[in-house]
Amino acid sequence: MNPQDIAETAAKRLEAAWNAADGAAFAAPFAPDADFVNVRGELHSGSPAIATGHQQIFDTIYSGSTVSYEAFQARELDDRVVLAHVNATLNVPGGPLAGVHRALATVVLVRDGDEHRVASFHNTLVAAP
Amino acid sequence: MNPQDIAETAAKRLEAAWNAADGAAFAAPFAPDADFVNVRGELHSGSPAIATGHQQIFDTIYSGSTVSYEAFQARELDDRVVLAHVNATLNVPGGPLAGVHRALATVVLVRDGDEHRVASFHNTLVAAP
Repeated sequence: MNPQDIAETAAKRLEAAWNAADGAAFAAPFAPDADFVNVRGELHSGSPAIATGHQQIFDTIYSGSTVSYEAFQARELDDRVVLAHVNATLNVPGGPLAGVHRALATVVLVRDGDEHRVASFHNTLVAAP
Repeated sequence: MNPQDIAETAAKRLEAAWNAADGAAFAAPFAPDADFVNVRGELHSGSPAIATGHQQIFDTIYSGSTVSYEAFQARELDDRVVLAHVNATLNVPGGPLAGVHRALATVVLVRDGDEHRVASFHNTLVAAP
């Protein structure tokens, strides 16, 4: 697969998992030792922590939310590593974070056998102009 | 150099450039095609854009500011690529952003000949607890 397809494949898996509110499925595309930095600047290391952390927000502040991910840019850093940038649009139906939020993620994917796994995901809310 | 030293070397160069308010020096450790995502979720691609964007903030909202970077975590993704996480503490003496701001950056460095260059830098403000 080319870098764009690799990035889109991962983005669509993450999107489906978010929209199913399934923390374990969200963590599945990540490498076991992956690092995740969320919009609050908090680092979660390891896919178990990524699964647990996401299940927690799916069950609370982001309950009922839907996300759309668009991998708009991807390139190879070398023959095993892909760097991608992903636009996220998050729709939260209620609670303290109700509304539509846009974010931009930098995603690093590393080839592991026949597939690429997410080694790093860093997400930042896009500020109002 | 080991991954930690590679990350610290880059962090110290960026820190020195920031504290000299020198946009060109800030961009120097980056690869020509590097991607930078700032705390507002804005993507700047290419080292010229990174230089110009930083010179602009050094001359305006972050005028007189000082930063301290600490590369607290670094590991190899393969034999050419290093993934690092960097804590930033920014002290802004005046203006609308006066105060101390903490941020967390994910930094990806790629070996180019004898040195590593920053291919990706993504920075997020650490939210209040």
